Amino acid sequence: MEAAILAVDWGSTNRRVFVLAADGNVLETAQDDRGVLAMGGSSFAAEAAAMRARWGDLPMLCAGMVGSNRGWADAGYVAAPASLAGIAAAVHWVEPGRTAIVPGVSRDDGNRADVMRGEEVQLLGAAAAGLVAPDAWLCQPGTHAKWARLQQGDLTDFTTAMTGEIFAQLGKGGLLADGLDGQVSDGAAFRAGVQAARGGDLLARLFGARAGLVLGKRDRTDQASYVSGLLIGSDCDARLSSDFAGARADGVDVLASPGLGNLYLAALDELGCPARLVDSHAAFLVGITQIWSLLQ
Amino acid sequence: MEAAILAVDWGSTNRRVFVLAADGNVLETAQDDRGVLAMGGSSFAAEAAAMRARWGDLPMLCAGMVGSNRGWADAGYVAAPASLAGIAAAVHWVEPGRTAIVPGVSRDDGNRADVMRGEEVQLLGAAAAGLVAPDAWLCQPGTHAKWARLQQGDLTDFTTAMTGEIFAQLGKGGLLADGLDGQVSDGAAFRAGVQAARGGDLLARLFGARAGLVLGKRDRTDQASYVSGLLIGSDCDARLSSDFAGARADGVDVLASPGLGNLYLAALDELGCPARLVDSHAAFLVGITQIWSLLQ
Repeated sequence: MEAAILAVDWGSTNRRVFVLAADGNVLETAQDDRGVLAMGGSSFAAEAAAMRARWGDLPMLCAGMVGSNRGWADAGYVAAPASLAGIAAAVHWVEPGRTAIVPGVSRDDGNRADVMRGEEVQLLGAAAAGLVAPDAWLCQPGTHAKWARLQQGDLTDFTTAMTGEIFAQLGKGGLLADGLDGQVSDGAAFRAGVQAARGGDLLARLFGARAGLVLGKRDRTDQASYVSGLLIGSDCDARLSSDFAGARADGVDVLASPGLGNLYLAALDELGCPARLVDSHAAFLVGITQIWSLLQ
Repeated sequence: MEAAILAVDWGSTNRRVFVLAADGNVLETAQDDRGVLAMGGSSFAAEAAAMRARWGDLPMLCAGMVGSNRGWADAGYVAAPASLAGIAAAVHWVEPGRTAIVPGVSRDDGNRADVMRGEEVQLLGAAAAGLVAPDAWLCQPGTHAKWARLQQGDLTDFTTAMTGEIFAQLGKGGLLADGLDGQVSDGAAFRAGVQAARGGDLLARLFGARAGLVLGKRDRTDQASYVSGLLIGSDCDARLSSDFAGARADGVDVLASPGLGNLYLAALDELGCPARLVDSHAAFLVGITQIWSLLQ
């Protein structure tokens, strides 16, 4: 099959390139660490030229932080509710007909503002691919965990939580760093953290994690799992207690790799909410292919 | 008046020495940065000898992190409910009759564990001095904010929140660092943060603080006050929604310097809870003097 397009999922730290046929089939794929903040002085134009030199002189459609004000060009945001058609209509053309960047999505009801950039392709792609129902509750765990509501296949609302970043910062220094270098896994310590997180008092529960170590209530080897449970549990509990309450009946589709995804499945299970893993790469591919076809 | 004792409030980063007469009057006081984690290789015995060389060869009573497992000696914890008499009975004698370290206080009901070390002298001293009522709700803002319940002058329960430490960590790097170097003050941005913090969804509200900047909802110069409002508001709201609910009627006594103390007063006011500032140094002095007199 002939290569038709280069689809680039270009984030802050990593970059994944898919060489796609016109029907969306993946002919080749590669991942590297040349993210937007990790290009070592190279320009975006030079990076694009290098990709074309390697995979062919093809049209290129980019998504992710490459479209931020620290990326190749600021591709702006479309306001939720957002659809693949609305996103396609708003792509930023770096070079008309040849190189485009997908915009992000914003939401702002005057009370709460939020933004995403890159995740929208996966979220809308998941519904377009039939990987999730047209009406679905989606979660993308990570440094900045996204929780999104899909209705009739459109992205109608979402919330971002700093779950992964706070865990990483706690490990770098300060009171809680002791023990956070340990392995995080689902088990009694992780689930105890999830349960302790209920009720929205994270600042006190975090100090309590240290006090528990000091008073010998917990083995040091369990500390990383317990604190991870506190953070992921806080995130899930806050969601199920507010905008995502409906997910208790419908279940949550978690777009993630199995490692982190299974921790979210465990936390949601502990909180009485059904959930299942969805293939996030497949969702991205269908999303980006459909955006491209809408541009033709 | 003749000097009778050296009282040393010896924390992790700072140390304050009070030269006291037998009746508790302060004859001289000095503060320096020779905290437990900042002594530059000097030994505790050498530091104590230097203090005696400067202020007189007097009995010495120390409180704070000097009594932790990273301090001079581990003075342990007494379990809440704790009184000045109970603490005096459990002091750790480095040198009998001459040099003592006050123990900390722990609480553990099987569900939630917590510890303090040093704050107990202020808390119990505040009631002993008549600075607060025998039944009172106390707050000591800081890196690790303490909230304590006094009943009939005894410390019956408490909760610690990582409020100040999380704010400091967010300023050191990561998504929210931009703008956090600004001045924090009470005002519209701080109080908007307090209101946004209600309901216990801190992880999402923190990301929303960044989204608000990106979408131009807030001036960069207001960001530090807004994020401080989010954290202090989360702390206060969680307390007033749980163990500290009774403080809504009785009011909170805030043991702090005016700078940080007034931010807590503003947050509590915004949440509909009366509060007032109490002189924390005076509380410490009465507490430590009473412990010393109980040792005679």
